[in-house]
Amino acid sequence: MTRQQLVEQIQRKKSYLCVGLDTDILKIPKYLLNKPDPVLTFNKAIIDATRDFCVAYKINTAFFEAMGARGWEIMEETFDYIGNDHLKIADAKRGDIGNTSHQYAKAFFDMLKADAVTVAPYMGEDSIRPFLEYDGKWTIVLGLTSNPGSNDFERLRLDTDDVAPLVPSLIQPSRGELLYERVLRTVSCWGTIHNLMFVIGATQASDLGSIRSIIPDHFLLVPGVGAQGGSLAEVSEYGMNKETGLLVNASRAVIYASDGEDFVEAAANAAKAYAAEMAGYLG
Amino acid sequence: MTRQQLVEQIQRKKSYLCVGLDTDILKIPKYLLNKPDPVLTFNKAIIDATRDFCVAYKINTAFFEAMGARGWEIMEETFDYIGNDHLKIADAKRGDIGNTSHQYAKAFFDMLKADAVTVAPYMGEDSIRPFLEYDGKWTIVLGLTSNPGSNDFERLRLDTDDVAPLVPSLIQPSRGELLYERVLRTVSCWGTIHNLMFVIGATQASDLGSIRSIIPDHFLLVPGVGAQGGSLAEVSEYGMNKETGLLVNASRAVIYASDGEDFVEAAANAAKAYAAEMAGYLG
Repeated sequence: MTRQQLVEQIQRKKSYLCVGLDTDILKIPKYLLNKPDPVLTFNKAIIDATRDFCVAYKINTAFFEAMGARGWEIMEETFDYIGNDHLKIADAKRGDIGNTSHQYAKAFFDMLKADAVTVAPYMGEDSIRPFLEYDGKWTIVLGLTSNPGSNDFERLRLDTDDVAPLVPSLIQPSRGELLYERVLRTVSCWGTIHNLMFVIGATQASDLGSIRSIIPDHFLLVPGVGAQGGSLAEVSEYGMNKETGLLVNASRAVIYASDGEDFVEAAANAAKAYAAEMAGYLG
Repeated sequence: MTRQQLVEQIQRKKSYLCVGLDTDILKIPKYLLNKPDPVLTFNKAIIDATRDFCVAYKINTAFFEAMGARGWEIMEETFDYIGNDHLKIADAKRGDIGNTSHQYAKAFFDMLKADAVTVAPYMGEDSIRPFLEYDGKWTIVLGLTSNPGSNDFERLRLDTDDVAPLVPSLIQPSRGELLYERVLRTVSCWGTIHNLMFVIGATQASDLGSIRSIIPDHFLLVPGVGAQGGSLAEVSEYGMNKETGLLVNASRAVIYASDGEDFVEAAANAAKAYAAEMAGYLG
């Protein structure tokens, strides 16, 4: 899916919602466990319930890998079921030396037929390039995440580049940037706004202003709304750009809106409510 | 496998070699492609050829994920075939919010029955804790990697904690530490030498002295010897501690030592040569 197609979907649906499929067999409605293939059945039901209200689906690969080989098949079948009108994101947080990242790119783009995959930046350029080199696919690099651990390393302040020539004066050196800011600035040079997005957690909405000064035009994948406490209003206020530039993900708040036999209706209502709120912010 | 068991294996075999199974169907001997299940057949042959000369096997998950669901089964069958006398490492470079990392830990420790999994540190403590909480398992966190991209972020210099009170003087502030040094120092507080190791690339052997000043006692998983150009002699000189503290990985240099029908013998000879060199360094 191209950037233009994504923007058109957002405008048509008045929604920039991404539904996160973090499907956990311990959390899906109990009555499904008596049916064949309960996890795939659940995914398909959620997709049918929400496809009019969202523009993207995000499969959290961990939940399917925890099921072994069958989990991998379910990911394939789920992406296949979604079809081509939604951006299909494999939330995989991969990243390794170039030779290995190339294999991950094959796994997600060729085998799973994802449109996009999330990638961790720690290992640098050659760990990310193999994903960016796939024509017509998206690489979504971790910037500032939504979890408490984002304070441990992502927010570390870097040395100023030029602290060495400090001379006796009252002028303080300008403070260095934070690690995640450097990641955004550096990685944005490796791709374009047509093949690169960043993960920016919704729980950090107050930082979106300064983030937009570094990457004004990129799409941001924003997790953390809902169960993790992020505010859709704040994210939209500070993060939106002229082509929207946001995909706001909700996982648990949609897919587990009910754990009873009404889970389909409940998921549809939750997704519809997000879309309605988003329509307001889109103006 | 406990630390004591690992140290005993090293002492008994006079080897701290880890054989890396980066099995690529495009690189295995062509004649195997006519046999059923060539990748699993290759893995088993390599394991039989090398098990006397190494103490660990590392499965590079990317190469198997690139095969889809069958790749996941092959990983399971390969770990099963290795048995319990070698440390079984899933080289997966995972890491996500706590809720998700818990699922990855289930995938690798419960489903694949790995003894150890590699984890990326970018997202911080709650992305790593779920792995460390598994009793009797190892978490191997990326420190300084062997690839060119390690210069992009891992080696960034951090701000000194106390640059603020700089006053006019000729005294330079002491330089801040590098990101990977901070990662080692911080993450080492989250686990113990009995459940935590670090990835330190062999191509960065000159840094091993200062790394050992931060984490003197931890085991290091050292990739990059062989195809990536790292020196076993340097790694051993600067990285070894009193309980060895090293697992040196060789992948391509062992498993692709020959692409002909003599690949088993060639792999055995390559692993044997590494082990013989290691026996010398163990003294």
